[in-house]
Amino acid sequence: MSKPLILVTNDDGIVSKGIRILVDIMAKFGEVLVVAPDSPQSGMGHAITVGNTLRLYKTKVFNGIESYQCSGTPVDCVKLAKHHILTDRTPDLLVSGINHGTNTSISIVYSGTMAAALEGAIDDIPAIGFSLCDYAADADFSHTLKYVESITRQVLEKGLPTGIALNVNMPAIHKGPIKGVKVCRQAHARWKEAFDERVDPYGGKYFWMAGDFHYLDNGEDNDVWAIKNNYITIVPTQADMTAHKVILELKDKLE
Amino acid sequence: MSKPLILVTNDDGIVSKGIRILVDIMAKFGEVLVVAPDSPQSGMGHAITVGNTLRLYKTKVFNGIESYQCSGTPVDCVKLAKHHILTDRTPDLLVSGINHGTNTSISIVYSGTMAAALEGAIDDIPAIGFSLCDYAADADFSHTLKYVESITRQVLEKGLPTGIALNVNMPAIHKGPIKGVKVCRQAHARWKEAFDERVDPYGGKYFWMAGDFHYLDNGEDNDVWAIKNNYITIVPTQADMTAHKVILELKDKLE
Repeated sequence: MSKPLILVTNDDGIVSKGIRILVDIMAKFGEVLVVAPDSPQSGMGHAITVGNTLRLYKTKVFNGIESYQCSGTPVDCVKLAKHHILTDRTPDLLVSGINHGTNTSISIVYSGTMAAALEGAIDDIPAIGFSLCDYAADADFSHTLKYVESITRQVLEKGLPTGIALNVNMPAIHKGPIKGVKVCRQAHARWKEAFDERVDPYGGKYFWMAGDFHYLDNGEDNDVWAIKNNYITIVPTQADMTAHKVILELKDKLE
Repeated sequence: MSKPLILVTNDDGIVSKGIRILVDIMAKFGEVLVVAPDSPQSGMGHAITVGNTLRLYKTKVFNGIESYQCSGTPVDCVKLAKHHILTDRTPDLLVSGINHGTNTSISIVYSGTMAAALEGAIDDIPAIGFSLCDYAADADFSHTLKYVESITRQVLEKGLPTGIALNVNMPAIHKGPIKGVKVCRQAHARWKEAFDERVDPYGGKYFWMAGDFHYLDNGEDNDVWAIKNNYITIVPTQADMTAHKVILELKDKLE
C-alpha cells in the first residue's frame, strides 16, 4: 500500500512552532505536503482572497519535505494545494495547526485553523484542526504529541464520516495531567469585545479589538466544560450552517 | 412604542448601491445605524481584525442617518457597533447587504455579508443577510424591494428563533418574474478553483483565484434549486457548526 498523502497547514504562519511539531508527527505516517501562510493569519475565519492577488513560493523550511508559503489566508492555502499544486492527487488527510491558542466553542467561526480544516471537509477530505490552549509562541506541546499521534492514526485507519472536520483542543501543559479524550459538541458561548481606544502620533484615533469570553452553557457534554476539566476535546464540525430544525416553523411565518 | 433600532452593514463597502437601497428601506421601519466597511470586503467570511489596528470614522454618506465607516471586516463592523458605538442599547434587528452577488449553498462560509448577519445572531439579535444574484456594481434591485420590505416587516413583527440569521437570496431581474418565497436548506455544493497564473512586470509569478461552482445536490428543497426556479430563498442559519448526528459514532471510534 502506498503511503498516505497528508496536507499540512495552519494559521499562525509557516515558521511557527506548532506547525513544525505537526509536520514532524505527520512525517511518521506518510508523505507530507505543507502549504501555509507566510505570516500570522489568526482570526481570518473562512476568508479567501478574491479581490487581490496571491503569491506562492516553494520553501525549504522543513527538511526533506515539499513545502510552500502563501501570501493568503489558511483557506487560500488549502485551495492552492487542492487545485493548483496537487493536480492529479487528493490528500488522504488534511491537518491544520497545531494552533497556538484555544479554538473551542464559538471561536470556531473566527478560527483560520478550523476554516482550513473545514475547507478540506468541503472536498470530502478527512480533516483535523489541532489547537493547544496556550497562546505563547514558545508554548510547550510535549504532553500533546501522543494524542495528536493517536487521533491521527485512528482517522487514517478508520476514516471520518463524509464532510466532517474534527476540532481538537488540548489543555495547556501547566493544567496538569490530561484525563482522556472526549467527543462532544461546541459549547454555547460568545465573545464580548472591549475595544481599546488609542491615539496615534498624528492625533488620529484607532482601536485594538480585545474582549472576554462569555460562557452561556449549562451542560457537561460540551468542549469548554471538558477542556476546563482537563480533557482533550474533539468536536465533529461541518460546513452546513442550516438550522434545519426551524425550517418548518419559518415556512409558516415567511412563505 | 419606540421605533426599532436597525443596524445596517454589508461587505461591498459603505458606498455600494446595495447598502444604499437597504438603508432607504430600513428607514421606513425604524431608527437606522450604519456601520460598514470603508472598502470592498467580499470573501472575508467571519474574519476579524486581531493582529492589527482598526479605524472608525463618522460619515455623512446617508442623509440624516448616523453612519460610520470602518477599516475592518464586516464582522469587525458589527462588533464595533454592538460593543463600542451602542453602549446602552441593543439593535432590534441587524440587516446586511444587499450583497452584489449570490450567497447560496456553500458560499455562506466565504460570505462577509452572512458572517455579519451571523455575528448579530451570536448575540441573539434577529438578523438577515440579503443578497442579489447579480454581481454588477450597478445591478437593478427594483424587483426585490417589496420582498426585502415584507421579510423585514415579518421579522420585526414576529421575531426569529434565538440565534438564527436568515440567508436571503434573490434572483437577478433578467431572470423574469419572481414566483414567491421558499424557506429551505443550504444546497450541497462546492467551489472548484482554477487559479489564473500570471507574471508581474518584475518577472514574479502571482495568482488570481477563480473557479466554478459544482452543484452536488439531488433535492428540490434547497436554495440553489429554488433560485434556479426563480424563487426568493430564505435559509435559516446558525453559528453552531457541530455535526451533532455523528457524535455517538465518533465516541466509539475516538474516545
